[in-house]
Amino acid sequence: MTKWVYSFGDGSADGRADMKNLLGGKGANLAEMASLGLPVPPGLTITTEVCSYYYDNGLKYPDSLEAEVDAAVAAIEASVGAKFGDADNPLLVSVRSGARVSMPGMMDTVLNLGLNDITVEGLAKNSENARFAWDSYRRFIQMYSDVVLGVDHYHFEELIEYHKEDKGVLLDTDLDAEDWKSLATAFKAKTEAELGHPFPQDVREQLWGAIGAVFGSWKIDRARVYRKLNNISDSWGTAVNVQAMVFGNMGDTSATGVAFTRDPSTGENAFYGEYLINAQGEDVVAGIRTPQNLTRRAREAAGSKLPSLEEAMPEVFSELAAVFATLEKHYRDMQDIEFTVQRGKLWMLQTRAGKRTAKAALKIAVEMAADGLIDEKTAVMRVEPAALDQLLHPTLDPEAHRDIFTRGLPASPGAASGAVVFSSEEAEVLAKAGTKVILCREETSPEDIHGMHAAEGILTARGGMTSHAAVVARGMGRPCVSGAGQLRIDAKAGVMTAVGREIKAGDILTLDGSTGDVLVGAVKTIQPELSGDFSKLMTWADQYRTMAVRANAETPEDTSVAREFGAEGIGLCRTEHMFFEGERIIAVRQMILAEDVAGRKSALAKLLPMQRSDFEAIFKIMHGLPVTIRLLDPPLHEFMPREESEFEDVAKAIGINVAVVKRRASDLHEFNPMLGHRGCRLGITYPEIYEMQARAIFEAAIAVEEATGETVVPEIMIPLVATEKELTLLRECVDAVANDVFAETGHHIDFLIGTMIELPRAALRADKIANAADFFSFGTNDLTQTTLGISRDDAARFLDEYVKKDIFAQDPFVSIDQDGVGELMKIGVERGRKTRPDIKLGICGEHGGDPASVEFCHSLGLEYVSCSPFRVPIARLAAAQAALKEG
Amino acid sequence: MTKWVYSFGDGSADGRADMKNLLGGKGANLAEMASLGLPVPPGLTITTEVCSYYYDNGLKYPDSLEAEVDAAVAAIEASVGAKFGDADNPLLVSVRSGARVSMPGMMDTVLNLGLNDITVEGLAKNSENARFAWDSYRRFIQMYSDVVLGVDHYHFEELIEYHKEDKGVLLDTDLDAEDWKSLATAFKAKTEAELGHPFPQDVREQLWGAIGAVFGSWKIDRARVYRKLNNISDSWGTAVNVQAMVFGNMGDTSATGVAFTRDPSTGENAFYGEYLINAQGEDVVAGIRTPQNLTRRAREAAGSKLPSLEEAMPEVFSELAAVFATLEKHYRDMQDIEFTVQRGKLWMLQTRAGKRTAKAALKIAVEMAADGLIDEKTAVMRVEPAALDQLLHPTLDPEAHRDIFTRGLPASPGAASGAVVFSSEEAEVLAKAGTKVILCREETSPEDIHGMHAAEGILTARGGMTSHAAVVARGMGRPCVSGAGQLRIDAKAGVMTAVGREIKAGDILTLDGSTGDVLVGAVKTIQPELSGDFSKLMTWADQYRTMAVRANAETPEDTSVAREFGAEGIGLCRTEHMFFEGERIIAVRQMILAEDVAGRKSALAKLLPMQRSDFEAIFKIMHGLPVTIRLLDPPLHEFMPREESEFEDVAKAIGINVAVVKRRASDLHEFNPMLGHRGCRLGITYPEIYEMQARAIFEAAIAVEEATGETVVPEIMIPLVATEKELTLLRECVDAVANDVFAETGHHIDFLIGTMIELPRAALRADKIANAADFFSFGTNDLTQTTLGISRDDAARFLDEYVKKDIFAQDPFVSIDQDGVGELMKIGVERGRKTRPDIKLGICGEHGGDPASVEFCHSLGLEYVSCSPFRVPIARLAAAQAALKEG
Repeated sequence: MTKWVYSFGDGSADGRADMKNLLGGKGANLAEMASLGLPVPPGLTITTEVCSYYYDNGLKYPDSLEAEVDAAVAAIEASVGAKFGDADNPLLVSVRSGARVSMPGMMDTVLNLGLNDITVEGLAKNSENARFAWDSYRRFIQMYSDVVLGVDHYHFEELIEYHKEDKGVLLDTDLDAEDWKSLATAFKAKTEAELGHPFPQDVREQLWGAIGAVFGSWKIDRARVYRKLNNISDSWGTAVNVQAMVFGNMGDTSATGVAFTRDPSTGENAFYGEYLINAQGEDVVAGIRTPQNLTRRAREAAGSKLPSLEEAMPEVFSELAAVFATLEKHYRDMQDIEFTVQRGKLWMLQTRAGKRTAKAALKIAVEMAADGLIDEKTAVMRVEPAALDQLLHPTLDPEAHRDIFTRGLPASPGAASGAVVFSSEEAEVLAKAGTKVILCREETSPEDIHGMHAAEGILTARGGMTSHAAVVARGMGRPCVSGAGQLRIDAKAGVMTAVGREIKAGDILTLDGSTGDVLVGAVKTIQPELSGDFSKLMTWADQYRTMAVRANAETPEDTSVAREFGAEGIGLCRTEHMFFEGERIIAVRQMILAEDVAGRKSALAKLLPMQRSDFEAIFKIMHGLPVTIRLLDPPLHEFMPREESEFEDVAKAIGINVAVVKRRASDLHEFNPMLGHRGCRLGITYPEIYEMQARAIFEAAIAVEEATGETVVPEIMIPLVATEKELTLLRECVDAVANDVFAETGHHIDFLIGTMIELPRAALRADKIANAADFFSFGTNDLTQTTLGISRDDAARFLDEYVKKDIFAQDPFVSIDQDGVGELMKIGVERGRKTRPDIKLGICGEHGGDPASVEFCHSLGLEYVSCSPFRVPIARLAAAQAALKEG
Repeated sequence: MTKWVYSFGDGSADGRADMKNLLGGKGANLAEMASLGLPVPPGLTITTEVCSYYYDNGLKYPDSLEAEVDAAVAAIEASVGAKFGDADNPLLVSVRSGARVSMPGMMDTVLNLGLNDITVEGLAKNSENARFAWDSYRRFIQMYSDVVLGVDHYHFEELIEYHKEDKGVLLDTDLDAEDWKSLATAFKAKTEAELGHPFPQDVREQLWGAIGAVFGSWKIDRARVYRKLNNISDSWGTAVNVQAMVFGNMGDTSATGVAFTRDPSTGENAFYGEYLINAQGEDVVAGIRTPQNLTRRAREAAGSKLPSLEEAMPEVFSELAAVFATLEKHYRDMQDIEFTVQRGKLWMLQTRAGKRTAKAALKIAVEMAADGLIDEKTAVMRVEPAALDQLLHPTLDPEAHRDIFTRGLPASPGAASGAVVFSSEEAEVLAKAGTKVILCREETSPEDIHGMHAAEGILTARGGMTSHAAVVARGMGRPCVSGAGQLRIDAKAGVMTAVGREIKAGDILTLDGSTGDVLVGAVKTIQPELSGDFSKLMTWADQYRTMAVRANAETPEDTSVAREFGAEGIGLCRTEHMFFEGERIIAVRQMILAEDVAGRKSALAKLLPMQRSDFEAIFKIMHGLPVTIRLLDPPLHEFMPREESEFEDVAKAIGINVAVVKRRASDLHEFNPMLGHRGCRLGITYPEIYEMQARAIFEAAIAVEEATGETVVPEIMIPLVATEKELTLLRECVDAVANDVFAETGHHIDFLIGTMIELPRAALRADKIANAADFFSFGTNDLTQTTLGISRDDAARFLDEYVKKDIFAQDPFVSIDQDGVGELMKIGVERGRKTRPDIKLGICGEHGGDPASVEFCHSLGLEYVSCSPFRVPIARLAAAQAALKEG
């Protein structure tokens, strides 16, 4: 027969901490604490299965439930030595909901249940405190009427206010027993007036009313919405906890408090918490009275005059300290607890794993591992990878004043201050002159790369979390606020406004890329400390992960950062980023504007030494680690100026007629550049471009091998392949260049040729494509765009709405859409391996730095993920957790 | 033991017509004719297996081949009564290649093989014609040296020219036996000088040299390329035919000719062909002499004075007529034959199914079926569906003079003349005034729909076969030439130029949409005759096909055309096309420019009655046939003007500030509109738009049901769905409108709600999406764009190159990429049916009118294809053939 009710108290319990699904989080932990011999007021837990039964059976309870509850209440009575509903010595209980995971929106708590017109007198007598008894009674009526009977609490607050007015006093503390007694009567009358029947005097009726209210609250709208948003199944149900009351408000030897076993903000191994003397639980958080510190040290640090618990109740404090030690040792994690002291006796009301900052999580995990409380694997699992982002970037001083100019999307974390500039050229000039600048643009394009590099931070009026600005800024580790919709930029006039307020070029702004705030003036920032804890945890993580982590980087700076953050190679070197710098853009444009192959080749000849030296620098920094170089990918028009006014400059620089520039720019125009003449399509139609790039790679690799003696094995990646034939043709082209260079230099190197799988067709035909590929790298950005038919640059218009309406659980450009894009990846992996079992597989989309996506890649058996340098630690940790979860 | 050599002649043969794979087309048909008792010069066929053996075994022949050839040659000798290499009575043979399918680029023919310095004398004696013998010898040396020995033929032509100069004559006919004799000697000397060894005198060496040359030519570059382009496997190999020579040049009782058993141009059941007296085969096609007609009737019709074969050689002619009858009866198809008359005796040298025009194919198929020569199924299989296009549109009079202005892509078939206009407005105004116009645009956009409708034809400077202009023009049945790259249009100046030549607005142009030619002036066109043959064949086709054929249409005109062409419903009614007409665009823009839901609703309220009346018209025309209406699909910016100059007009028309128009237009701008805020994404973010459209559909359906008494079951199609949730939400939205309308009218109708499968994710998650869909319609245009990552509008830049380089066998926007897009369709079908076995499945992309794609859709088990009205007959025929092929 199913057991519907679990008892706990007096050093034993029917349940355990690992029975959260059945008893809810609160009930399971109360049972566990009871079993540990900790002072837990006795109680009972009605299981979540009752909730399911209740809804599956037309809101009826199981037959045997009542008897089980009665028996469990009797056990509480026996333990406490009081009787539920007894006139002389009444047992009072609390009734609380408790689902598997804490769920705001549901009925929370009814306290002091068991009081009625008769038992209140018993309580007054036993407590020797009539005021306390009547205050408790009126609180009960108020709370029960509100949460169980649905009479809004303002009715009662109004009555209290009237009463105080009548009496001519200001504070609740000025009311005495008689006042509360008459208010209790008034409350009952109010409830009866609202409901048409009297407030229940029968304590069993009270109890079952409260139980029913808890179960009922499982299906109210707020709770449903919360579950939907948090992926909590409707079928889980909630448990109900009924527990003997203890009172922190029985005078000055009573108290109530909340505490963490360690500092949840810094992770420091020191008690952290607050308490109030002569108060009930909700008073601590209500903020009416100033809570007091737990420890003397904390009190002194805070400069508070109110005595700490350590000082006010030293015995209770040392008992609490022992409880903390027991709990940490037992749960092997930092605990968030609630306690009450009733007339000098400590009672534990709740314990659970405490929420913490990333910094604290790191410190606690590493210290607990050092203390042997947990092993290294557990320590690795304890830190949320995404939270590392907080640790890797400067943050705004939380104490500093924030004068918010406008808000946008938190597109790239970190904080930075600087003078406002409206163009990339200006950004570069000022930065070279030593001025810190914030680049403010309507939106950015690849032309802005140098300006973004020069700037401390980037602010855009348009574009989402995955707009050009956002992606590039994250890659560079620059803070970025994107899509600040209120912003109106008039770059020509050198001014921007937001809701009427004006900021001029040169004015100082501060960006908080972690919140999306744009602040006026310079706000103090705090530099990250990549402390010993961080590197220790990362070392442990590296031991357990099976996937390698590479970085997407192309500049020497980014490559160095990537190495510092532990990248084990470059997974994506975007050669086109190199095309925008300095003199190069002129040669690039000359190449684009050439009328024939000869003209293109002569322009490409100018680019060759520049590309070669780029690659040499990268190969040197990477010391023989693998470097995947993607050949030119974007459509050529991205390299042309946008404004007609700039055409003249280009024509002059290259020495051709401006009409030619205009015509060519117009010829190059594309309706959907994302699906246009780009990627390997450029290589097919202008093989001389890829030939130049291949030559630069081979010559650089040979030069570095000769200079350093380290082996360089470049991985040449052909983008946007849809068919085997494209790759075959371009492979032949690259091979031919290799043979030429090897013949010219008399030096042979090994190299790989592979492709990105970034089109649905490529994934579907991976079996064929693998014939010509040494490796696949999943380009999940473009694969997401094509599979879902969503342009990353245009998605902002509806993606928010899509996430709000739960069409996508998450932005699919942030976390891989596993059902759609993920299936194509799976198909690509399976079919690629079928043809070539040893094919090297990786991912180089933005998703490579998203923990959920990293876990998915692990499940596909990829060899590596590659992400922006600043996300490398996140990927390392996520990869370790994926491996540990699997193990 | 493998038989390597097959003999034929004297009324019997080792081979048969159905042994084309083994004997090649020519050899198999020669064998068949011999078996039929037709006069075929005896010969032998070396099988294609020898070719394969030859290449698989290091260019060696099978051991037994020589003996088999010897035996077969002996049989020829016996039959002819001459001996190979015999001085007195030499056997001469032809050696011809013959693959399964005719293959230009390979070695074709060596005639007169067996002649040498000795046998030439025997030929002279036996033929009593020394000139003939020496002419034959020199021809042989010339031909053999060229095709077998690789000595270029110009060497020999030069020698003839010198000889004629020396002799002071102009024509070959002025050369006598001695001249040819001395030229034969000079030829041999030339060959020896070029090769370093003498011309072979051993006739066996000659024979094996020729056989080797045929096999060798299988792998020369031209042949390889041709095979690649025509999907002919390298492994098939070629056969070699060795056949006793017969001579059409043995004097005036000899002749040679080519003939078709019916007119290949009109299909008329009358002999059609040409012959020459005293000539060899190549003379007929060489064009040096004017060939003569076969029949008197043809001669008279042509006004020729040269006697027809019927008149010149009546006995031969009647024998030939009997042969034609035998062949047609036997092959049950129109034949293309070659014959030679040697001294009054008819010899058949070749027969094969004759190529024919669409018109002829139709007529021949229908007449042969009427005559009981073939059954209806065969008749249906005999007409190439794509060729029907020729029959459904006006064509240019082939006799008319063509003054070509420029050329573009043959984007939409048919021909039309009219005055040049450069804007859609102008087109509409002039057309209303009764002027026929040709709309000339850089490229067209949805705004141009009304202008395209008003124009007789459309010419664009940009865009491919599947550009907007091309797709819309095909849908409307308007001829269109797109992507005329040389064209420079200056619309403001009212002029366009191509390679320096100028055409002004108002000048008359003629478009040939079937060839891409743009002609100056009005060129006479011929109207199509949808004759009895056409409708008879279509009726037969309809009996055998299992897939329904619908049309993509939205205007009453197009809908009517679709019905005339036999459409069984509308598979795609693009509601947005209705948004551009007349006053509507103002309301549409008002809706787009509205700042809130209320503003949008008030604009939509204006559109409602217009949409309703559109739908009423369509429902009425379709008389209860299914009509699939797609809710709004394109991004809203498509409805905004493109030129800033037009913003003012819009602002005025709607009565708002021009700055608002500008800002909104800029807000709406998209980088990749194809992947942007369109399709169901509009329905999700602006549900009021879909609500209006749904209301218009339901109100129209009810009104038509009430007016006509015919049941209307609208199929409402939600575009661009990627997830089940989108469809669920929009289904709820449409259902709610339905319930409202049913309640308001008291009239209930049945309707379906379905979606397009046009994104890879939709195909992959078809199992989920089917939960909310009554039907799927594969939108293969967008599915191709996303699966391949190719924008249809931008593909022209590289797609040609891609097809040339064999990366795509065909333009994937014309014929479904079965390996990529096709697999997604297959997945979509399987998964959709798994969830909902009775789900209705169709296709509404442009591919619905492509025969290969129709066959593919049949193989997937789709219920219908939908295509532009003018392609409906093609789809009907293709669907029938697909069903018959399967059967």
